[in-house]
Parts: sequence; C-alpha cells; structure tokens
Amino acid sequence: MDPKRKATVEELMRRRRLAALLFWRPDELVMMLGYMPLWGVSVLLYPADGEAVLFVPELEPEDILPAGVEVRRYPWGVLDGRDPWEVLYRAIKDELRKRDLSNGAVSFTRNIGGSAPCRMSGEQPPLPADLAEQLGRVSDGGWKDAGGELLRLYEQKTATDVAALEKTHRVAARAVEVFYEEVEKGHTEAFLSALIEATVQEVNGRAGISFAKAWPMVQSGRNSADAGRFNRSTHKIIASGDLVVLEMGVCVEGYWADITRTAVAGEITDLNRRMYDAVIGAQRAAYALIRPGIAMREVDKAARDYIDDCGFAGYFPHALGHQTGFRYHDPGEALSPFSTGVLREGMVITIEPGIYGEALGGGLRVEDNILITADGYRILSASHRELKGENYGN
Amino acid sequence: MDPKRKATVEELMRRRRLAALLFWRPDELVMMLGYMPLWGVSVLLYPADGEAVLFVPELEPEDILPAGVEVRRYPWGVLDGRDPWEVLYRAIKDELRKRDLSNGAVSFTRNIGGSAPCRMSGEQPPLPADLAEQLGRVSDGGWKDAGGELLRLYEQKTATDVAALEKTHRVAARAVEVFYEEVEKGHTEAFLSALIEATVQEVNGRAGISFAKAWPMVQSGRNSADAGRFNRSTHKIIASGDLVVLEMGVCVEGYWADITRTAVAGEITDLNRRMYDAVIGAQRAAYALIRPGIAMREVDKAARDYIDDCGFAGYFPHALGHQTGFRYHDPGEALSPFSTGVLREGMVITIEPGIYGEALGGGLRVEDNILITADGYRILSASHRELKGENYGN
Repeated sequence: MDPKRKATVEELMRRRRLAALLFWRPDELVMMLGYMPLWGVSVLLYPADGEAVLFVPELEPEDILPAGVEVRRYPWGVLDGRDPWEVLYRAIKDELRKRDLSNGAVSFTRNIGGSAPCRMSGEQPPLPADLAEQLGRVSDGGWKDAGGELLRLYEQKTATDVAALEKTHRVAARAVEVFYEEVEKGHTEAFLSALIEATVQEVNGRAGISFAKAWPMVQSGRNSADAGRFNRSTHKIIASGDLVVLEMGVCVEGYWADITRTAVAGEITDLNRRMYDAVIGAQRAAYALIRPGIAMREVDKAARDYIDDCGFAGYFPHALGHQTGFRYHDPGEALSPFSTGVLREGMVITIEPGIYGEALGGGLRVEDNILITADGYRILSASHRELKGENYGN
Repeated sequence: MDPKRKATVEELMRRRRLAALLFWRPDELVMMLGYMPLWGVSVLLYPADGEAVLFVPELEPEDILPAGVEVRRYPWGVLDGRDPWEVLYRAIKDELRKRDLSNGAVSFTRNIGGSAPCRMSGEQPPLPADLAEQLGRVSDGGWKDAGGELLRLYEQKTATDVAALEKTHRVAARAVEVFYEEVEKGHTEAFLSALIEATVQEVNGRAGISFAKAWPMVQSGRNSADAGRFNRSTHKIIASGDLVVLEMGVCVEGYWADITRTAVAGEITDLNRRMYDAVIGAQRAAYALIRPGIAMREVDKAARDYIDDCGFAGYFPHALGHQTGFRYHDPGEALSPFSTGVLREGMVITIEPGIYGEALGGGLRVEDNILITADGYRILSASHRELKGENYGN
C-alpha cells in the first residue's frame, strides 16, 4: 500500500473515531492495494490498528493478489452448501472482536453504482442486495457516515498511482497510433473501433500487464456532430472529408485513461483547422491557469472564453473536464461553469474542449489527462493529437 | 411492451396494492421496453393505470428510444446549473399526483449492483448514491418491498425476448466460427480473444443492430485447467496439443448469450475425446430431464452423475448452469446440488458441464443456452460445438 494513502486513511480513522474501514468496490481495491479484482466480490477490512485483511473468493487467481496484505479466502463459488456471505460476515466480525475493536463504528461506501468494473467487466459484481446492511452489522458500533471522505480519497493520486497511470497511458498511446494509421482506410466506424479495442485487448498477459481492455467509440462526418452529446460507433463508412472523433476509456489493471482524438480523413479544410486551433488554444488557456488552489470554474471559463473568442460561442455544450484515473469518470467535482471546488495537488483531471455542430460539418474534441503537481501540472496522455497521424506528409 | 409482461406487471401492482413501479437498472429497461440505455440514467415510471412514462437524459440518442411509451427528457448532462435529479424526482411526483396515485406506495429494486452494463459499458451508470432513498419519497405512500417479485420477472422470457435472444445468438454464432477458424493459427490467447471481440464489435450499427459487444476469454493448455475457477486471456501462445476453452458473454442491444466452446489445437487424444464425450453426455442427460416442473437439483444431478460414471468424479467443481438472457448471469436460482427451485416455462438457463484438471492436461467445457418451453426445451445456442471447426477434415 502506498505510504501516503496509508497515512491518509489511518488519519481519517483516528479523526472520525472509526474501528475500521471496509472497501469492496473494484475501484476502491485498486486505490487501496493496486489490486483489480477478477470476480468483484473481494472485501478489504482495514482496521484502526493498520493490519489490514483482504478477503477474496476461493476462485480468485493467485497471481493477481496484492503483496503486503494478509489475504484470506472465503468459500464463494464453492459447491459446499454454505452461504459464502455468512462466512465472510462472520470472519470480519471475529477479526474485529479479536482486535478489541467491536465497540467502534465501521464506515464504507454504501453505493455500488458508479464503480469501475471488475475484470469480469461484462456485468457488475454479483454483490448481494443487502451487503451494506449486513456489513453495517459486523461491529456493535454499526455503520458511521464518513462524510464523503471516502470518495475524496479518489481525488489524491499517489506516486504509486501515477506510475500505474503512466503504464495505462503507454497502452493508450499505441491505441491512438492505430487510430491514426487506420482512419483513412475506408473502414466503418465500428470496424475501426474494433481494431483499436483489439490493439489494447491483445496486450493482456504481456510482461507486467495482467489486464487491459478498451472501450473505443468512433464517430465520423455527420455522426461526429453528436460527439458532444454521446459517443458510439455505427456502421457508417469513414469517408474523405470526414471529421473523425475517437473517444475511449482504456483500463490497465484498474487504472484508467480517458482520451479523445480527432482526425480528418482526406483534405483538411480551413474550417477544420479553425475548429482545431480553437480547441487546442482552449486547452492551452486552461493549462496556463492550472495549479493547486485555482477554482475549477475559472479553468473552465478560460477555455470557454477562448472558444467563444474564436467565433464558436454556443458550440461547446459540455463541461471542460472531470476527474479520472480509478475509473473512466472518477467521483468528485467536474470542471464546469457551476463548479465550486478548487484543483489540488494529486488530482488527475481531463481537459476536453470540443466544438460540435451540423452547421460546422461535424464535431471535434481533444481530450487529455492531466496530473496536478505542486507547482502546476503534467500531461499524462502525451500521445499525438494532430488532425493527421504522426508520419503524415513524410 | 410485450403484452404478457405488461399483464404480469399490472397484476403484480394490483395484488401488492402498489401505486407504481419504478425501473432504472439497465437490464430492467431492456426487460420492460427492449430499450438498452446509452447513459444508464433513464427511469421508467410504470403507474397502476398502465400509462407508463420513460424519463431519459437530455443527451440520450433519439434513435434508440423505445416506441409505444411516452418519453420525456430531463436535463441530465445540460450545463444549466440545475440539479437534474431534483428535476426528475419532481417530475415523477407530479405525475403520480396528477393521476391521484400519491397516496399509494411505489416499489423498485433498490440495488444497482449486479445489473448488466449500459451501452457506455466501461463503468456502471452514474446514479446518485441516494437514488433509492429519493425515489422512495416520490409518493406519500413511500417504498414498499415487492417481496422478490421484481427479480422474478427476469425468470420469464416472453416471445419478444426470445426473438431478441435469437438475434444475439446469431451474432454469437459468428464469433464461435471465428474461434474455430483461428484457434490453430498460433495466436496468443489474448490475440484470439481480440479477434473474437472485434468480430462482434464490428457488427455495431449494421442493419437492425445498434449495439453489440462481446467479452471473450480464451484459456489454452495448462491455463485451461483453471477454466472452472475463473476465465481470462493471457499472452500464452496456443500450441499444438492444447485444449482451448472459449468462454464469452455476447450482448446485442441488452440481450445476452453466455457460451463456452472447447477446441483442441492439433491432434485429439483419447483422453480429450473421453472428456468431450463425458461433457456432451452430461448435457444430454440434463436435456433428457428438462421440462417445466422438474427440480433444478435433479437436472444438476443427472449431469453430475454422468460425468462421475465416465470416471471424472471430482473434476466438475461448479454448478451445472444458471439463468441468463437479460445479463451475462441473470438473477434467480442456479442449477446446483443445493438448488431448491424448479424449472418453469419461459426460463432461459445455461447448461455448462465441464471437466478440469492439471492431471488431465487441462480443462474442457461446453456451455449452451436453453429456453424452457411448455413441453420441454429449445437450444438457443445452436452453433457448432465439436473439438474441431465445422469444415475440419473436408
């Protein structure tokens, strides 16, 4: 466990007088242990004494289990007639009693909604409907609201997290290359998406990467005008003259990149160039302000004003960015005209201005992922972001 | 809405004396309307008078909205400073008041966990943590437990559902073909998974299919011995002599297939053949019993006994099957030695016996999806299921 996060969590327990914290959301387990569960039914007991125990289902693969924490199996997925959840609740209770912590309250995030997927990403983890209720009874002190502090843990990426995010961005950068390499070959949007997804999925199990998956969506020509409202891929063939927007989430072992690139198939028009310059200029206007302490609303305003001043007022309908890293979209405030928060060191945010309109012949967005540092920022998604691929014209 | 499901739901409301039902889980919306939400934040108000209203976010694409139900937009994703959820709760309250239903109780599934993904499948729908609490207040009568009846709706597939599932299985069948075509070409497990996933994803937006995605996992050789505990793809190259297990969920517009096929790369050994014959025989032993009214436990036992009698006792560690269709794994009882339920007409179940062991050189499973009919059953996943592809030896 990262020493900084360990200190934060233990300080939180002392201040809130908690006997223990419990974590079971897939993204919380990534945050606490760098461990992305396969089945999604693992539970971390983090008691006030700091000696954490991770309960994992009997079926969980050995080689993805985290080091530096005690791991115990419970009989989920075993045909022995026992209710695995009863066994788990009992084990947690016993553990708290053994440590003389049974009188204190426990806290945890009650809501499973919104969480990132587990490795079996085709459905949400099969957690019982009464999980929160049952876990609220593992201690005589019951459940205590931590006042949003557990969700605020997502807002501080540690050095450990940043190293993992850099790995994700290396995989994402290869996906971006494939986008540029293939965008003018007359594929359908869906086929291009499939090629990009395959590029990422193929990485599974390579040295040091036990899980990689992407969710790419490509919108071209008239479809790209919708890219500010929703993203998806259709069977439209990408044609010469199309603006082509790639929006994608890329997950490597539970760490996420959220990236958008826009290419032009065929000739770049003056209007395409003006739209692109406005969006890149809006990013730069945002970067010029980004540092710890700046109001999110001000950063949004700088980018929005830039786009307006370029003559595209009314064509940028969404927020400038949001937090990311443990999910496609992390919890915590987004950067919009209505934000009340400020940027803080350790946050990872997207900066994703876009301009969309049928009258403009489509849409264009560039989205990058930014780490807020002590004295400014660092771009994590340092891949190519022009209207043509890297080797264009060579 | 399918007339049979409409009748079931309205009868449930009368019997339980409910003013309305609310549905917001992505898989519930598929079940009720054949509508797989893109953003995952749509809510269906189904009042006792039968005149349903579907609330969708402002950003939802027009062309995926269901016919035959009133659709209203609420300002989710719109930068106007309003809290979209407040607007939504107010709209539902007003609607109940207008219909003189405000004194009655409403019911809904409180748990978002376990649900199938929305079209933005990279993360769970961004529903607020207090959604259930807030929706419990839309009527003066509060929330009333429907005693598991809402989950039991999943157990009855209508004619409408079956037609949709057949479409999913047509897409899945093509993915199975690609598995057999490519399994002996020296790919890594991850690359073969990527090819299969691309085959499905490429279908997006073709005539009559607005969403298709697959979650394929391939395990070969020694890795296939783990296929009874977990599924994933690694960077292992598929080699001659390997048993190769493909496990996959395929989702087409919210309707799911859950399929497993096992191929042999290279020469089929006598042991491979004995394992295969035992598994196929176990499926047949199950089918021989399957009809409405039969105890799930008996079906499991027939298959399990067959495998034992073939000399593989102790090598089949998991349940024989589970319900499927609205998700990769539907709620409701599975077919195991500990089941207490019976099969009923309209259920869709998997029958997936498997034999795994390092001592056997790997694992082998065949999984099919079965509709329970009035007088027996019908196999929905009627694709090729041999140890070699369809054109092998020709």
